[in-house]
Amino acid sequence: MTPELTLYDLAGADAALRFSPHCWKTHMALAHKGLTAETIPWRFTEKEAIGFSGQKLVPVLVHGEHVVSDSWQIACYLEDTFPERPSLFGGDHARPLSQFVNAWADTTLVPVLARLLLPEIHDLIHDKDKDYFRATREKRFGRLEDLPAGYADRIAELRAALLPLRQTLGKQPYLAGSAPGYADYSVFGMFMWARCTSPLALLDADDPVYAWRERLLDAFGGLARRAAVRPAAQAA
Amino acid sequence: MTPELTLYDLAGADAALRFSPHCWKTHMALAHKGLTAETIPWRFTEKEAIGFSGQKLVPVLVHGEHVVSDSWQIACYLEDTFPERPSLFGGDHARPLSQFVNAWADTTLVPVLARLLLPEIHDLIHDKDKDYFRATREKRFGRLEDLPAGYADRIAELRAALLPLRQTLGKQPYLAGSAPGYADYSVFGMFMWARCTSPLALLDADDPVYAWRERLLDAFGGLARRAAVRPAAQAA
Repeated sequence: MTPELTLYDLAGADAALRFSPHCWKTHMALAHKGLTAETIPWRFTEKEAIGFSGQKLVPVLVHGEHVVSDSWQIACYLEDTFPERPSLFGGDHARPLSQFVNAWADTTLVPVLARLLLPEIHDLIHDKDKDYFRATREKRFGRLEDLPAGYADRIAELRAALLPLRQTLGKQPYLAGSAPGYADYSVFGMFMWARCTSPLALLDADDPVYAWRERLLDAFGGLARRAAVRPAAQAA
Repeated sequence: MTPELTLYDLAGADAALRFSPHCWKTHMALAHKGLTAETIPWRFTEKEAIGFSGQKLVPVLVHGEHVVSDSWQIACYLEDTFPERPSLFGGDHARPLSQFVNAWADTTLVPVLARLLLPEIHDLIHDKDKDYFRATREKRFGRLEDLPAGYADRIAELRAALLPLRQTLGKQPYLAGSAPGYADYSVFGMFMWARCTSPLALLDADDPVYAWRERLLDAFGGLARRAAVRPAAQAA
């Protein structure tokens, strides 16, 4: 019998709020493989709780004696450990190409989205995380209170950055082709980060990216659509 | 016996100068398949010469009764018509992912590179093309004479835009993995556009993208490295 899977998963003050883009990549990858993990809510400052992983960031996956950190490494671990289950990549050649898509999401979308989401995230995280969060994020993105003035420009910038995704999704339903794969999840995680934390409308409803996001929200029985979001957005 | 292949290929005033990024994608794809095409030098204004293709741009590939335009469609045609030869994509799942990489190159790199290359290209093309070229390009990118003042900023912008490629190539030799595939050629075509037309140094020698470009220049017996480049660059 396969050992249980445990996932350390970034949480807000409300432990039900799981908003990390990288943890969402892993949630979707687990669902794709038909696997269930026990999730442990983890806050930014709980570095000692994942010290056994040899680094300080989530997601961290524990599977029996195996400890894997970094969402890309977790995807590769799941693919190689459960080869009989649906493939996350779809073959040896698709894996390196998926790595490029993952890098594109991380390097192109994270910086734009961070400037759109960090102030709201600051309001949603545990009190004990707030000083750490502000100090580390402001070093990179500037004062949190100054960011909202740039939201309209950042949304325009995000929509422009999504052009290669938009153009591709105009020709095929998913990045991975006719069905979603890890390349899709690596980008979709970014949108879950936004969905869980922000009331901003990032996409026009007639954008092919919007329709793709809707399909992924519905995937795996609506796993992502059911996820807890910020209270104000729930009420809206 | 398979019918001969003919490729309509963008040329400069010197018919030996073949600098189109999209035609270079096709040159590399043909070499990957171990195929040789007769190339017909084509100038921007020779619309009637490719009128039989139902559109106005090169590359156009003619193979017996088949006429295929658009470099992506040509890649798919070669893959499907010569399935026994080395795969350009590496499987059904890698093809849609390669389409994303191609879209990334076209939407992200073409606009930055155009602003770096158009003035030099204007000097290299056939006299009969110059009015057409200036009119169509200036509509999109502004006055050709104004572009060189922005070269330093554009090179910085290009290097920033290459971040997902750089990060991926820090982890694997090619976008397609351990050996190059069409995803690599779709990006490499952009660098051939620059190599053939411009003296600008676009990459630092310690950039993983530089080493990758070197490997692709050497691929297929140095096909790309042997290509004719602008006279000034040859002399330098």
